[in-house]
Amino acid sequence: MNERGTGRIETFSDGVFAIAATLLVLEIGVGGTRPARLGHELVRIWPSYLSYVTSFLVIGIIWINHHHYMRSIVRADRTFMFINLLLLLDVAFIPFPTKLVAGYLHGSGERDAVIAYAATLLVMAVLYTVWWRYARVGRRLIGAEVSETELRANDRAFAPGVPLYTVVFLLAFFSPLAAVSLTLALASFYLPAAALFAER
Amino acid sequence: MNERGTGRIETFSDGVFAIAATLLVLEIGVGGTRPARLGHELVRIWPSYLSYVTSFLVIGIIWINHHHYMRSIVRADRTFMFINLLLLLDVAFIPFPTKLVAGYLHGSGERDAVIAYAATLLVMAVLYTVWWRYARVGRRLIGAEVSETELRANDRAFAPGVPLYTVVFLLAFFSPLAAVSLTLALASFYLPAAALFAER
Amino acid sequence: MNERGTGRIETFSDGVFAIAATLLVLEIGVGGTRPARLGHELVRIWPSYLSYVTSFLVIGIIWINHHHYMRSIVRADRTFMFINLLLLLDVAFIPFPTKLVAGYLHGSGERDAVIAYAATLLVMAVLYTVWWRYARVGRRLIGAEVSETELRANDRAFAPGVPLYTVVFLLAFFSPLAAVSLTLALASFYLPAAALFAER
Amino acid sequence: MNERGTGRIETFSDGVFAIAATLLVLEIGVGGTRPARLGHELVRIWPSYLSYVTSFLVIGIIWINHHHYMRSIVRADRTFMFINLLLLLDVAFIPFPTKLVAGYLHGSGERDAVIAYAATLLVMAVLYTVWWRYARVGRRLIGAEVSETELRANDRAFAPGVPLYTVVFLLAFFSPLAAVSLTLALASFYLPAAALFAER
Repeated sequence: MNERGTGRIETFSDGVFAIAATLLVLEIGVGGTRPARLGHELVRIWPSYLSYVTSFLVIGIIWINHHHYMRSIVRADRTFMFINLLLLLDVAFIPFPTKLVAGYLHGSGERDAVIAYAATLLVMAVLYTVWWRYARVGRRLIGAEVSETELRANDRAFAPGVPLYTVVFLLAFFSPLAAVSLTLALASFYLPAAALFAER
Repeated sequence: MNERGTGRIETFSDGVFAIAATLLVLEIGVGGTRPARLGHELVRIWPSYLSYVTSFLVIGIIWINHHHYMRSIVRADRTFMFINLLLLLDVAFIPFPTKLVAGYLHGSGERDAVIAYAATLLVMAVLYTVWWRYARVGRRLIGAEVSETELRANDRAFAPGVPLYTVVFLLAFFSPLAAVSLTLALASFYLPAAALFAER
Repeated sequence: MNERGTGRIETFSDGVFAIAATLLVLEIGVGGTRPARLGHELVRIWPSYLSYVTSFLVIGIIWINHHHYMRSIVRADRTFMFINLLLLLDVAFIPFPTKLVAGYLHGSGERDAVIAYAATLLVMAVLYTVWWRYARVGRRLIGAEVSETELRANDRAFAPGVPLYTVVFLLAFFSPLAAVSLTLALASFYLPAAALFAER
Repeated sequence: MNERGTGRIETFSDGVFAIAATLLVLEIGVGGTRPARLGHELVRIWPSYLSYVTSFLVIGIIWINHHHYMRSIVRADRTFMFINLLLLLDVAFIPFPTKLVAGYLHGSGERDAVIAYAATLLVMAVLYTVWWRYARVGRRLIGAEVSETELRANDRAFAPGVPLYTVVFLLAFFSPLAAVSLTLALASFYLPAAALFAER
């Protein structure tokens, strides 16, 4: 009774991804006191929009990829379920550093806020890689009909994750805004670019 | 491996629609300090109810239509998934301008609040049209069994979206309350009216 | 293309029910300032627990019954989907008057708070009855294999809803606490009692 | 019509588990006023991280086990649905005492906060055991193909729940931090340990 289907993992994971992405909007606000000119205030809080869009796309892409990789994974043991739970724990945490970036970017404290944000994403990338390696090594949880070619394609898709988020993390120490912008750029170009490359 | 079924898109989209609609209620409140006469306060915050009902119906109709159109769409590529993610990003953002309308309608700042609200809905209408055009042009993602008659019916259903939300957006500059009321009227009459016309 | 399956209605409705019930907890708090003695404060906010439990059970029972009735309903037209959307709009609104009851019960303003709460539940009961009547009259949306006996059993199950919530609503004007307690009692005894009677 | 399939119970329960876990992050904040040094503040709020991780893992494990036990349960009557609703009511409540632990641990009031937290988990363990006993006694809701060996394995899995959470509850009176840490340790080791033992 140690291995079971993966449908339940997808249901719970889908729920956490969708909820975490949709909760992001709750962190956007126009200040506790009633601003004199709302229009100016709505421009002033541009870091909120930047962090909202960035985190929403990051979570959306994690979700799309999660589904993609789960097609190769046909079994789940309790260790895998625990790793998946840790991954979800990190994804569900993203709204907190997103709120920090929204509130502190372009002001004092922005470096600490973006470091916390980049650290959360880096931990996510590490856990995601562990998640895939655990399932993939020795084809532990891989379906018999999945080809080695497909597994290697997945390996290549995972390869840039940890290095790229390490760059974002290090960049946060020098230029917080650049670190967030790079994260947004990576998320924005990931899906269309993947579409381009996949057709070759 | 560039095309895949559409079940996963529906699951995640359904989640975001349901959560965004249900989060709207969190924005309703009776002020930070304890009002002396709660009954009066509950009447005074009528803009909160108006914006709640309007946004809930708008999101509900987006959701109903999303399902309707997904029946014609049998494949999904990564570009389509990215467009769908942008659409969800905009829908999940709706609670923020809804909160602005709730807090500022019928007071100073109401024009800016409703412009932000109408702009969010206009972007939604544009993204939704792009979403459909991408799937429909050259029957890129359309099932072979879907008739041209049905596709043209869907085209007609999409046609009024962007013009109507443009009218709402322009109206927001002159009469914020009228702009919100028009949005509510459109949402309220859309479903029953569609039912009337569909039977002819 | 005017009738379609009911699976999508259940998915979205389930989502709204689960989210509305789970959001209730967000309204519970121990006051803006740090209370000197947390233990006393946790006792003092008993109206929060009472309103949380009451609303959670009410939403849970609406959900259980929704599923039960949807087994008889095999089609959906756009009018039915609109009525269902209005029902969800009301259910998703429940956290707001629940917050009012939590904050005002056993203090000034409690009457207005509980009237708002009871009015929300009464509107729910009316919409729910309309929802069922629309599907049931002339067997408009009922499956051919559903017996008249079963439909009449459902009719009987709906019959007490509006009268009981009318009693709760009227009671709110005289004794707010009694009105909330009656709602809780009805919700608490509904399911076990239904189980008792169903076996006869 | 007194017994029905269990699919709907799983859908609603999955939703509540996923939402409750994901809402936990909303309780994390860096104080109402803008802290002078954000980095220090992010270290100072370590109880928020501890309570977030603990509650997320606890809910995740309840969810994993819920699915596991539901495989043996093939019927549901209204009493079982009511017990399940009470279990969900308690799980959905967890974010509130989690917020208390986040705000009060390592300061005055920490004992009351952790007692409230441990009490919520103890009630959960009791309800969960009642939930299983109701389904299992006389194989009331158990599928015919489920072996007695499997049922006894489930009995053994449930056995430590109430005693362990009673220990946590009693520990909260003497050492609040130790009580939370023990809860985290139990949750962290549960899944991998279960994986170890299951293979023997």
